[in-house]
Amino acid sequence: MSGSYDPRTFQALTFHDATPRFRDGSDTPRAYLERCLEAIDRREPVVKAFTVVNAEGARAAADASTRRWQDGRPLSPVDGLPIGIKDLLETRDMPTEMGCEAYRGNFPRRDNAAVWALRQAGAVVMGKTVTAELGGAHPGATTNPFDPSRTPGGSSSGSAAAVGAGMVPATVGSQVGGSIIRPAAFCGNYALKPTQGGMNRGERQTTSMSTHGIHAGSVEDVWVTSIEIVRRAGGDPGRRGLMGPDATPEPVKPGRLIVLETEGWPGVDDATRRGFAMVLEALEKAGVTLLRRRDHAWIEALERAVANGRAVCGGITSWENRWGHRNLVDQYPGQVSARAQATLAKAEAMTLDEYRTLLADREAAQLRHATLAPLADACIMLSCPGPATPWAGDVPGQPLAPRPTGDFVFNAPSSMLFAPAFTMPLMGVDGMPVGVQLMGQQHEDARITAMARWVVQSVAPVVV
Amino acid sequence: MSGSYDPRTFQALTFHDATPRFRDGSDTPRAYLERCLEAIDRREPVVKAFTVVNAEGARAAADASTRRWQDGRPLSPVDGLPIGIKDLLETRDMPTEMGCEAYRGNFPRRDNAAVWALRQAGAVVMGKTVTAELGGAHPGATTNPFDPSRTPGGSSSGSAAAVGAGMVPATVGSQVGGSIIRPAAFCGNYALKPTQGGMNRGERQTTSMSTHGIHAGSVEDVWVTSIEIVRRAGGDPGRRGLMGPDATPEPVKPGRLIVLETEGWPGVDDATRRGFAMVLEALEKAGVTLLRRRDHAWIEALERAVANGRAVCGGITSWENRWGHRNLVDQYPGQVSARAQATLAKAEAMTLDEYRTLLADREAAQLRHATLAPLADACIMLSCPGPATPWAGDVPGQPLAPRPTGDFVFNAPSSMLFAPAFTMPLMGVDGMPVGVQLMGQQHEDARITAMARWVVQSVAPVVV
Repeated sequence: MSGSYDPRTFQALTFHDATPRFRDGSDTPRAYLERCLEAIDRREPVVKAFTVVNAEGARAAADASTRRWQDGRPLSPVDGLPIGIKDLLETRDMPTEMGCEAYRGNFPRRDNAAVWALRQAGAVVMGKTVTAELGGAHPGATTNPFDPSRTPGGSSSGSAAAVGAGMVPATVGSQVGGSIIRPAAFCGNYALKPTQGGMNRGERQTTSMSTHGIHAGSVEDVWVTSIEIVRRAGGDPGRRGLMGPDATPEPVKPGRLIVLETEGWPGVDDATRRGFAMVLEALEKAGVTLLRRRDHAWIEALERAVANGRAVCGGITSWENRWGHRNLVDQYPGQVSARAQATLAKAEAMTLDEYRTLLADREAAQLRHATLAPLADACIMLSCPGPATPWAGDVPGQPLAPRPTGDFVFNAPSSMLFAPAFTMPLMGVDGMPVGVQLMGQQHEDARITAMARWVVQSVAPVVV
Repeated sequence: MSGSYDPRTFQALTFHDATPRFRDGSDTPRAYLERCLEAIDRREPVVKAFTVVNAEGARAAADASTRRWQDGRPLSPVDGLPIGIKDLLETRDMPTEMGCEAYRGNFPRRDNAAVWALRQAGAVVMGKTVTAELGGAHPGATTNPFDPSRTPGGSSSGSAAAVGAGMVPATVGSQVGGSIIRPAAFCGNYALKPTQGGMNRGERQTTSMSTHGIHAGSVEDVWVTSIEIVRRAGGDPGRRGLMGPDATPEPVKPGRLIVLETEGWPGVDDATRRGFAMVLEALEKAGVTLLRRRDHAWIEALERAVANGRAVCGGITSWENRWGHRNLVDQYPGQVSARAQATLAKAEAMTLDEYRTLLADREAAQLRHATLAPLADACIMLSCPGPATPWAGDVPGQPLAPRPTGDFVFNAPSSMLFAPAFTMPLMGVDGMPVGVQLMGQQHEDARITAMARWVVQSVAPVVV
């Protein structure tokens, strides 16, 4: 079965190009919001991206924004931006249920730091988007906007699907292993997973390699939304946070890109390989030099250092969650999924020394990555192993599917390297989106955004 | 008015030397606990160290521990240890009110990672100890156990006072600026503020320079309690955590110590100066070489790098708290102190660039400190500027006292350097305890503990 996505014709919802009409009065934030609400009415019964939509609160916020634009005094370039918030993050006006029965009805009436910043910038916080349970692998109800029989990816399932379905121009997601880039790639989004610590996670600081990040329908909306949050909330405590200009960086053509295979390459299907080869060929035709593992010993060393990426990410994060998840399972027996409980059991069998060894592996890989800075401008790789995989739910009596939201094999590297990653919807494979990502050195978020902008302008999306 | 403390005769409550009697049956954890509860009955009406004592839960836990010791199967060396938990940390069986009206009745029924680890090790979690509001400067009701007209220090006020009053052998505290070492020094405790990230803070990760740490009546109890927590809960996410042997490190005589003045020296009273000089003289007589700022340019450079320590610690932490404290003030109007609101107002006037500059200052100071590693074994300095200061409460209509829990001027350096600090009750000044601390390089927690053990054995406490 093939999906309905064609990257050559797909029109994502964008915001940055709407604001001039807010200024001249030919459009308003309220009208923009109403169009989003209509799209939600149309698509949500099948896509199921939201846990809650606060239409009333959003309309009030949009009306206030409309007045600010009409007065010529918007609070920021994202004043009036309708945005969905991954339901792991606290919001003062909507419940925060984390995709977990144990949190059903949880409503702490606080704003996560990024949400607080978005409100200060005038954005319209319109709903909470479905997350896989606790940001892990146990999926929620969301379906892929281009084929409801397939996963939207996870854990930022609803954030990716809402953007892919044109319900909102932007959403906040978060990634520990692959939870931003993978669903964005499956749903035709642009998305930035910032340098570790790039965007203040607020109350969500209990794992060492999770970051908030933005999903959107354009490079511009990704960047401007990200920087407006960080200008107000900063990065994680003790981190300098996302650095860069207030406006989207101008396009920059990369001179040299390293093509990373990662441990994912052997599992990539033929069509996706063909599509990726076409993207790379277009880059070479445009004058970009490509380097591969056979071209330099340091590249080979990085490939080896990230070749166990899923295990490193999974082991570290499971250990870091074990105390909190144990609390949850003890407090709410029967209200945490069997899938999460299996992960907890593995974590509780780990020793502190095993955890410390994984930290050292991660740090060693980061040093390998840093050595590549003088060799090339960035790395380029697939954002996912192919189109989103089918998912029809667990089968009672059968073993749990290991990766119902898809494989994060192409996302573990940037997570463990603390490196910024920008995914672009450059491919259509079997009628489904497949993303390609640029990965930069730590703190080069603006630089890869500039290069992503150039790639999007210079490389036509491919269909296979 | 002089206090009742004499370091030559003061007998703190200790635990490590009680467990042999648990083995041979001549004492039991339950009997030990009952003696603690009697001490609480006796001292608590004046000292006010606890927000809640869970006597029933503690007795059940102590009885279980008694059975384990009698079966010859204690869970750890701290099985049966009655311990108080600073009321910033969540506990599943007691409210967590954080010294703040806004959290009155807050009862999330979860255990902080360190509390979870203590229970796994068999410790008896017997109560919550008073914290200054939200870990800041606004004091709770606790008084100094050696003179009720004086502050116990803060923010770990109750943790320090409970140990000083002999109510419990150990407590958990936490420090952002001076919140472990200062109250420990004012209350005659031993205490270790570990290397940043040394002990998993669990849900309390939203500031970049807070650490949990242990207050106790002996070096041994400080170390063993610390390491038993970390063996189970690890350090903060992404940090390797406190490293060292399971048993208290054997005493090690330092060859060379750097005497740090810090920005606190000009404010030290004459008696405290005399007492500190006597301690240093005893060290020199024992063969320890002392180095000062005039002896080496790198020492002078460190003194300069930490000379603005209070402002660096205060600025960074205020910025990091501003989003969360704004949530709190908005959600609970009138239930956050004027003192905390004044700090919030200052933080909200800060820019992201100012925060980033403070982070860079902190990092530069850390590099200065690291250069000293080959010069000396550790630094030595006062733990507080003198005896605990009088505190009778705010006076309505008067400006708020800036530091009602005392000055953290001698504590800002180890906080901003992420360095381990071990305070010892080596001085009695005006009948009040005054601590002296060793500060090591990052991750040298075990090394300074070994040196603290040697100092305590080799230098008689002084009285001035």
